[in-house]
Amino acid sequence: MNIAIAQSGGPTCAINSSLVGVFKQGLLTEEIDAIFGSINGIEGIINDELLNLKSIIKTNEDMELLRQTPSTMLGSCRYKLPDYESDPAVYEKILHTLNIHRIEIFVYIGGNDSMDTVVKLSAYLRNINSDIKIIGVPKTIDNDLPVTDHTPGFGSAAKYVAATAQEIIRDSSVYSIPSVTIIEIMGRHAGWLTASTCVLRANGEEAPHLIYLPEADFSAEQFIEDVRKEMAKHKAVVVAVSEGISLSDENSAEFQSGKTDNFGHKYLSGVGKYLEKLVADRIGCKVRSIELNVMQRCSSHICSKTDIDEAERIGRHALRAALDGNTGQMMYFRRVSEMPYAVTIEMTEASNAANLEKMFPREWIAPEQNQVTNAAVSYFLPLIQGEMNIMMKNGLPVHFQRPLQMR
Amino acid sequence: MNIAIAQSGGPTCAINSSLVGVFKQGLLTEEIDAIFGSINGIEGIINDELLNLKSIIKTNEDMELLRQTPSTMLGSCRYKLPDYESDPAVYEKILHTLNIHRIEIFVYIGGNDSMDTVVKLSAYLRNINSDIKIIGVPKTIDNDLPVTDHTPGFGSAAKYVAATAQEIIRDSSVYSIPSVTIIEIMGRHAGWLTASTCVLRANGEEAPHLIYLPEADFSAEQFIEDVRKEMAKHKAVVVAVSEGISLSDENSAEFQSGKTDNFGHKYLSGVGKYLEKLVADRIGCKVRSIELNVMQRCSSHICSKTDIDEAERIGRHALRAALDGNTGQMMYFRRVSEMPYAVTIEMTEASNAANLEKMFPREWIAPEQNQVTNAAVSYFLPLIQGEMNIMMKNGLPVHFQRPLQMR
Repeated sequence: MNIAIAQSGGPTCAINSSLVGVFKQGLLTEEIDAIFGSINGIEGIINDELLNLKSIIKTNEDMELLRQTPSTMLGSCRYKLPDYESDPAVYEKILHTLNIHRIEIFVYIGGNDSMDTVVKLSAYLRNINSDIKIIGVPKTIDNDLPVTDHTPGFGSAAKYVAATAQEIIRDSSVYSIPSVTIIEIMGRHAGWLTASTCVLRANGEEAPHLIYLPEADFSAEQFIEDVRKEMAKHKAVVVAVSEGISLSDENSAEFQSGKTDNFGHKYLSGVGKYLEKLVADRIGCKVRSIELNVMQRCSSHICSKTDIDEAERIGRHALRAALDGNTGQMMYFRRVSEMPYAVTIEMTEASNAANLEKMFPREWIAPEQNQVTNAAVSYFLPLIQGEMNIMMKNGLPVHFQRPLQMR
Repeated sequence: MNIAIAQSGGPTCAINSSLVGVFKQGLLTEEIDAIFGSINGIEGIINDELLNLKSIIKTNEDMELLRQTPSTMLGSCRYKLPDYESDPAVYEKILHTLNIHRIEIFVYIGGNDSMDTVVKLSAYLRNINSDIKIIGVPKTIDNDLPVTDHTPGFGSAAKYVAATAQEIIRDSSVYSIPSVTIIEIMGRHAGWLTASTCVLRANGEEAPHLIYLPEADFSAEQFIEDVRKEMAKHKAVVVAVSEGISLSDENSAEFQSGKTDNFGHKYLSGVGKYLEKLVADRIGCKVRSIELNVMQRCSSHICSKTDIDEAERIGRHALRAALDGNTGQMMYFRRVSEMPYAVTIEMTEASNAANLEKMFPREWIAPEQNQVTNAAVSYFLPLIQGEMNIMMKNGLPVHFQRPLQMR
């Protein structure tokens, strides 16, 4: 039998490690012959654009390099699979590709949108009595998938964001004049990544002094008051703010563009700049906003070893689950112990995660709506532990070079 | 005898390592008693705000931690020392502080602006027949100081920028649609840091496909033509652009603010956003601009070991030069061999560097004005070699915590 793997959604540092997990388990499974990689997510299946992964990932070193290479080796897509009723032809194309290549298992690594594809495709295949198994492997730096304790990719993003925030704190405090530094952090609707900056407390940092999440109440007036209060206590105030907070006042519209992607998500940008201007206008002190941008999802050079190892492990489990006859399932982590940290890998109907978002818990938000509690610190800390021994060349991390067809 | 050290100008990853160098050499020198740290650069000398460094840096581990801590442990300033004629009182204040603390050597770690202070102060002290020695230690991520082969702090910034650019290249190439990614890199007038992204060639990267420096000719029309040409060859075009390029067209004014700091430098921002808008308007493809912001100067977690070691070494040499009776000098690196890479540490009159800028060589700019030559690769590569064995705690780099007086 043959199998296929695809990657979808926004890049992370861990998505190639999950690919390695599926691939390794495939190599170890006698009944599996070819292992195909689908180019650009499900689009590669629809358009019959597959790569023979065994001819691309040839050595153990290749697998190690993939584990330290960010983004998706196989490319990605934001394609939304239409309902069967509205476009049966797409499903027939997919079936055709799977059949002509004798693909009996398809592992889809992606976020909640990708789980929607797992749900629809597995339901379709069940309906036509096909034995082809579809399994979802979660991934997103947003950590906003339901059921799972956390998502692969999140720990590395959190480690980058916290380490960088710590460096920005050092940078922000050099001059004698009072200042405000605003760090804008990714997270469309969920504040997990922004909240994770609280881990700096474990190393004795007081900053970020203020943390604003989409799940908390926000008002520009309260923000200015919060900043003023912190400025009375600290010379250099550092604020962590999620790109997704709701700016309620009327002047904020220009900062939040109304454009949406194929899944109806708004492209957000500019909350940091907006708050920077607000502080400049209302308080008049030195102020700077910093957008951590795509570095949050691709800074493999400071990835979390826990995250990369778990991502590989969940990939291996996904293939085993499919071999055991499961379909339409999403693999997930269950935290069975916090000290020592331990997770088991389980599965759930992908429909329990598809198109749903898990928000940062309200009970972990301080009553003032501008900080998180120590329960959050305990939750986040295990996820950022451990460093990879990154292979370097010419003073730079070595990346796995994609096959020529992919460039 | 006692000595004093101060740090000035913008933060870097290496400026604390130079402090360690002076401090270590001070500990090893029998005739030196107290080693003072001046808070916020020369301002601490003027206002008699000194710290006893021996009571703050107590162990070898403290020194190791300082070497991996970005920004300035002693704070910084952008204070411009007035001419003696226009404000003799400031000089008298400085002399008073130096005298009451029996400070016979003052080492000032900073950029070209700080060398101006070294020049003025040493001239003043010579004039009044004082034996107090003033020595400058260079530092700037901009690498724009004359005489020296390169500046401490630059190698770490270049390593961060190149490693991050490489990750952004991975990130930018995941989707099937054509895209342009613009990375805006620091450098007021000199393009060294932007140009250093060329080191990625050594690891087989074709990107950044276009590199724009302040030293090259730039026109918006040519830029759009360059991007179009690269888009014909590559799906995901990556552009490295210096914040300091001159935008000649009339619409660019709003993107370059006219505010200046105490040294008359313009605060630049927004070149990336400007070019992003230009591509969106004129080409209409997916486009994103990324500002690497202060992370360029504070990302110690991926600093260059060569840079940190050299920064310490030049600090030690600075104190030795002062003990040998020199004053008004700036220490510098002379590259005596490229393969194997080797530098010697020499000194020059600080006036040879003060208020002057060393530009990226025109002969290393490709005739098309949008790339750099391989000679630049050979120059940059040695500076980013080697990784520090960063001490970690709770999954994060440990930073040296400043004394309470400094927070």
